[in-house]
Amino acid sequence: MIEKIDGVKAGIKLCYGMVGGGQGSMIGGTHRKAIALDSLAEIAAGCFSRSAENNTATAKALGIARDRCYGSFEEMAKAEAARSDKIDFVVIATPNDSHFAACKAFLNNGIHVVCDKPLTLEAAEARELADIAKKNKLLFAVTYTYTGFPAVKQIREMIRAGSIGEIRYVNAEYLQDWLATAVEKEGNKQAQWRLDPKSSGRTNTVGDIGSHIENMVSCVTGLRIKSLCARLDKIVEGRVLDDNANIMVEYTSGAKGFYWPCQVAIGYSNGLRLRILGSKGSIQWTQENPDYIDLFKLGQPKECWALGEEGFHPLAQNHSKIPSSRPAGYHEIMGNIYKTYIGALAKLKAGQTVSEEDMDFPGVEMGVDGVIFINKCAESSGKGAVWVDL
Amino acid sequence: MIEKIDGVKAGIKLCYGMVGGGQGSMIGGTHRKAIALDSLAEIAAGCFSRSAENNTATAKALGIARDRCYGSFEEMAKAEAARSDKIDFVVIATPNDSHFAACKAFLNNGIHVVCDKPLTLEAAEARELADIAKKNKLLFAVTYTYTGFPAVKQIREMIRAGSIGEIRYVNAEYLQDWLATAVEKEGNKQAQWRLDPKSSGRTNTVGDIGSHIENMVSCVTGLRIKSLCARLDKIVEGRVLDDNANIMVEYTSGAKGFYWPCQVAIGYSNGLRLRILGSKGSIQWTQENPDYIDLFKLGQPKECWALGEEGFHPLAQNHSKIPSSRPAGYHEIMGNIYKTYIGALAKLKAGQTVSEEDMDFPGVEMGVDGVIFINKCAESSGKGAVWVDL
Amino acid sequence: MIEKIDGVKAGIKLCYGMVGGGQGSMIGGTHRKAIALDSLAEIAAGCFSRSAENNTATAKALGIARDRCYGSFEEMAKAEAARSDKIDFVVIATPNDSHFAACKAFLNNGIHVVCDKPLTLEAAEARELADIAKKNKLLFAVTYTYTGFPAVKQIREMIRAGSIGEIRYVNAEYLQDWLATAVEKEGNKQAQWRLDPKSSGRTNTVGDIGSHIENMVSCVTGLRIKSLCARLDKIVEGRVLDDNANIMVEYTSGAKGFYWPCQVAIGYSNGLRLRILGSKGSIQWTQENPDYIDLFKLGQPKECWALGEEGFHPLAQNHSKIPSSRPAGYHEIMGNIYKTYIGALAKLKAGQTVSEEDMDFPGVEMGVDGVIFINKCAESSGKGAVWVDL
Amino acid sequence: MIEKIDGVKAGIKLCYGMVGGGQGSMIGGTHRKAIALDSLAEIAAGCFSRSAENNTATAKALGIARDRCYGSFEEMAKAEAARSDKIDFVVIATPNDSHFAACKAFLNNGIHVVCDKPLTLEAAEARELADIAKKNKLLFAVTYTYTGFPAVKQIREMIRAGSIGEIRYVNAEYLQDWLATAVEKEGNKQAQWRLDPKSSGRTNTVGDIGSHIENMVSCVTGLRIKSLCARLDKIVEGRVLDDNANIMVEYTSGAKGFYWPCQVAIGYSNGLRLRILGSKGSIQWTQENPDYIDLFKLGQPKECWALGEEGFHPLAQNHSKIPSSRPAGYHEIMGNIYKTYIGALAKLKAGQTVSEEDMDFPGVEMGVDGVIFINKCAESSGKGAVWVDL
Repeated sequence: MIEKIDGVKAGIKLCYGMVGGGQGSMIGGTHRKAIALDSLAEIAAGCFSRSAENNTATAKALGIARDRCYGSFEEMAKAEAARSDKIDFVVIATPNDSHFAACKAFLNNGIHVVCDKPLTLEAAEARELADIAKKNKLLFAVTYTYTGFPAVKQIREMIRAGSIGEIRYVNAEYLQDWLATAVEKEGNKQAQWRLDPKSSGRTNTVGDIGSHIENMVSCVTGLRIKSLCARLDKIVEGRVLDDNANIMVEYTSGAKGFYWPCQVAIGYSNGLRLRILGSKGSIQWTQENPDYIDLFKLGQPKECWALGEEGFHPLAQNHSKIPSSRPAGYHEIMGNIYKTYIGALAKLKAGQTVSEEDMDFPGVEMGVDGVIFINKCAESSGKGAVWVDL
Repeated sequence: MIEKIDGVKAGIKLCYGMVGGGQGSMIGGTHRKAIALDSLAEIAAGCFSRSAENNTATAKALGIARDRCYGSFEEMAKAEAARSDKIDFVVIATPNDSHFAACKAFLNNGIHVVCDKPLTLEAAEARELADIAKKNKLLFAVTYTYTGFPAVKQIREMIRAGSIGEIRYVNAEYLQDWLATAVEKEGNKQAQWRLDPKSSGRTNTVGDIGSHIENMVSCVTGLRIKSLCARLDKIVEGRVLDDNANIMVEYTSGAKGFYWPCQVAIGYSNGLRLRILGSKGSIQWTQENPDYIDLFKLGQPKECWALGEEGFHPLAQNHSKIPSSRPAGYHEIMGNIYKTYIGALAKLKAGQTVSEEDMDFPGVEMGVDGVIFINKCAESSGKGAVWVDL
Repeated sequence: MIEKIDGVKAGIKLCYGMVGGGQGSMIGGTHRKAIALDSLAEIAAGCFSRSAENNTATAKALGIARDRCYGSFEEMAKAEAARSDKIDFVVIATPNDSHFAACKAFLNNGIHVVCDKPLTLEAAEARELADIAKKNKLLFAVTYTYTGFPAVKQIREMIRAGSIGEIRYVNAEYLQDWLATAVEKEGNKQAQWRLDPKSSGRTNTVGDIGSHIENMVSCVTGLRIKSLCARLDKIVEGRVLDDNANIMVEYTSGAKGFYWPCQVAIGYSNGLRLRILGSKGSIQWTQENPDYIDLFKLGQPKECWALGEEGFHPLAQNHSKIPSSRPAGYHEIMGNIYKTYIGALAKLKAGQTVSEEDMDFPGVEMGVDGVIFINKCAESSGKGAVWVDL
Repeated sequence: MIEKIDGVKAGIKLCYGMVGGGQGSMIGGTHRKAIALDSLAEIAAGCFSRSAENNTATAKALGIARDRCYGSFEEMAKAEAARSDKIDFVVIATPNDSHFAACKAFLNNGIHVVCDKPLTLEAAEARELADIAKKNKLLFAVTYTYTGFPAVKQIREMIRAGSIGEIRYVNAEYLQDWLATAVEKEGNKQAQWRLDPKSSGRTNTVGDIGSHIENMVSCVTGLRIKSLCARLDKIVEGRVLDDNANIMVEYTSGAKGFYWPCQVAIGYSNGLRLRILGSKGSIQWTQENPDYIDLFKLGQPKECWALGEEGFHPLAQNHSKIPSSRPAGYHEIMGNIYKTYIGALAKLKAGQTVSEEDMDFPGVEMGVDGVIFINKCAESSGKGAVWVDL
């Protein structure tokens, strides 16, 4: 009998709901395509927009039954929980300020959750979600997308295997340029909500992309931040939230680091880059050329590892669903997170034991760490870029 | 009302069948994932393997009804044609030698076809398929995958717009290394059938990847080959088909070119690269960094265009379904071809007019050109690497 | 009549002396080759080593008259000053701690000086040298080598011309790996004196390569540092001076920046890199590919400027002595500094007016700035990485 | 006692003369600077231009005694040969058509020769020069500049050591764009003589840069060409000599190759690139990033070797005179050729034995090979791009 086809376990087929992600949303479609890629789950319910018209039309276009298109997430959580064919999990794809309430509603109704990052505005809220999920034994993923790259898993395994020795220093940056001019004054909706403290909280850039840096470093190195000194800059005139930040960090291990998220770096569209210096070597990776890893070992010629080559860790190899040396794309990496999450969910549903390896997706504790990081950066900067403990 | 969601027309949902692509096949899963990405069509029937066990198990894993899992493609073509809920199109994903018979069976039964390249072993066969498709008004795509990159469409539009003036010279190469050693003697199945004239025809490397070069150049430049001089090398001892080739070409426009497909280039996994020299500028593109285009204009600093930037042609922009500056992956580009093909098919089915722009996928005439090219290369080389006309 | 040959003014031929640079020294030979490249000056005197044997043998090998090989720089300064054929200038190529005394000796004896960086250990010393040079009307260059790259001049001119608008943020790094292990315990002489506070002063990495960053940024942007927050790390166990540093800066203009000098970055041999973000564009340059400049303009494709191309500023073009598109090497850039310095000296000697453009080499005031920067970094770090004003 | 200083043997100091290289010449200054870099030889005589005025003024500017500035090379050869302080060697830096006569004059007068490439217009002439040099025991270098890169020596040693196994295929290209438009009609003197058969012989591009390819491949691989098939294109209208060429080659070892010299490739200034495929690995190198070598070994991650790193062959290490990881520039590589040549000459002059390793500069036999290659390309192309034996 065939156990696997197209790289996934035969027979898995769950259904899910979505909050947010109506027409005009960028991220909603990304989630749906990522889930579709492996045909592991089908959308069955949703509350896509505060606009009734958008909500209904989106539901119709997606082929959702009329009675499963809901006017509010509270209603949706209750109604779905009551159904025998209820959704297996929900995807929360709304702006940051509603993450907490939406997640809480579904968790309290016993529905598994996938939520965009940053998880919440306040650390206490994130903590509360984590606690409910734990108590109710619900699977909770936070879509830190970039950890879905096969190469990122490979870096983690290389470090775990000691390839670069003890980590000494981490330099990570994430450069974009879409906020290089005051686009929020020219009708750019995403810029508007991201630069508005009401929807985004205490920070813009740190929360949006700084948190990707924090998660990525934590994910591949396992290092935990002990203290940090952050300066959040408002470079484009008239902004009340940051569009650039410099963050010096110290880890509990004694290693040091520096993070630079920036959204006014003209010419850099999505420049997430990682350099990790160790006692025996260094590792370098960049999102703009994501299938390659530079590994530098003391006294050796530089090595460039390419996705799909011999020597890649099985975990990273399996993680990738693409033929050797064809590029891993954005939907594929988001799909990798969903593939793992849905795989674990299917096991759970089938009453099987879910191992730690089965849970190799960014979970709710990572979401909690992210919110703490963001708020500590804001605190440090507010006090004049001084050192604060985490 | 919402017209489009996730970048695709609302309401399209076709069903398809597949020949080949059972468990163990690399390309079958790629086709299925690419189609799933936009949720435009669902698999409903198939004949996945000559092994009955593999065939049945694959069908089961894919959730296909028992009566639509067929023992042969002839049976499948007839049976499906007779159904009221028949498949809208079939995907042929078998080794090269069965393309002709399989395509012909479905075309003759009035079913639209998507076929892997190279289309057939013999030019006359390819011509015949093209003629049947035309006569029966059937949509026929040949999956020259790499033309699905948004950047490739952009290059075509740049050239059409005169960015580099009149084309003078084309240098294109496609370097792989998976045949650098005699893996066909060590149980590599793909190497075995590809290096066997019975399944692959007169060439290996030229047919497998040389044809991608030929199609890519033709697609972006519009140039047609007038004559060529090819030397097909059998570098690894004991091979009867080529693993490397050098092909000098002359186009009908008077422009010149050189193609270099190679499968023994250690360290090059999937290095498809294109350089086009014109009277006013040059263009350079490489598959290993596929979202970037180098445009060099006379007397100007070099320009590097990145996917998603302002200035990209709307056609290339729309073609991409990914957020700005996130990488376009392998499934996404195959998906781009399917998205266009299925969109055209849906229009056709709805009785609407299908425009030339709707048909912007690699069609059967490109398949014909490919087979002619492959066989002329073999002819030239067989005569001692002399010039032959096309 | 021919005015120029090989790019230099015909007829210039000065003579010079050297302090330091005996056999075994890396930098002495670099200075001599750089000067020889344009045949503008000949070595005529020296005090090459504290070892009498090395001193004599070096002098002999360089063809220096016996009576112009001196036992001490004090003796040399006096004796040369008294000669009718005295050296036109002296090159100080000793470890940092003797720069001050050596420079002072020659300046007080009316001899022009070229000195390695950092200029002195203490800011007051640097100030004193600058004042003497000014009072005695002597030309004083500090060999911040990397500003000798034609591309660096070009960047400065691009910024002056407004290519990237107002500067908002500067990120500069200089990564090496030669101190990644405790080589100072394995007999590496350079590591020994550089990591010893007696010869190097308060810092190692900041003084050695951080000062190159500071000078490079100052040179191309014209920005002046208002305050800084520096953390100097001693990463390899047992060191008393820094081998890595993170420096957040604020400029008087309000722009912000970050400097990262590091000598434990395995795999990075001489990675000096500069990224300057402006309101209209960005500029990126790296020493490891020094003939290219990336210029990113808002809403435009990225531009890559190559040395020798049309559009290069005449100053940068003339500065380069190499045929178009051949690489500019290390001796050539040091030679560029000497070419300008010696050209100005020749004018001065000939009684001609020396313009500001004639003086386009790194001068003593840059040396003063460098020493202040270094010591403020040490101060900030010593207080716990707090902000200090300059 | 000090044996070496600045990397060269103490005490060497020869004198040389030059034919050609007057004001306005690009290459004359390059030779002089390259020689000056190591202070190994001084210019003492010359015949710099057919223009008496240019000749006299250049000599004066270079500080040459009035009686050693000659009106013709014949006169110079005779007069110098008769002097007790005669020049040790002569540099021939004239257009191609006078190389033969000039070289012959000096060889016949017992003076060692360094000549630009291509050595002569006719193969028989080149052979004659080689024979005279051999008979008269004179050192004869042909300045194939690019073999002076330390990395090129390193590649040769890697191949000799078996790093990539048996060579299977060579792909080499040299792309420039300075002839992309009809600059010869706009007063560009170099374009005029290079595109004129009287001064350049049967080819332009093949002779100018194709010969660099041929020499570079021969130098690093040791392969000898058995037969070739060349198509020389005249892409810009109105030209009588080639501005682009495609050359398929077969080596005596059975290995195959392809050379592509092109001078109409807009955006490529000096793009000499080499890819060598072997049975165990591949090597890649490009002149535009000359201090790095890509080494790909079967089943291993790609390696990138950087100049100055551990593991570099001593020959390549010594060859480089620059501090680790600082770039090797154009004058330095030409200087490397002179350093070796002058070192061998000094040994010869001192009556010492000159070993094969001492002679590690491009010699006259390489010059002969170059002329044969050029003329066979012209022959093949003239017959319709057919295969010809060498």
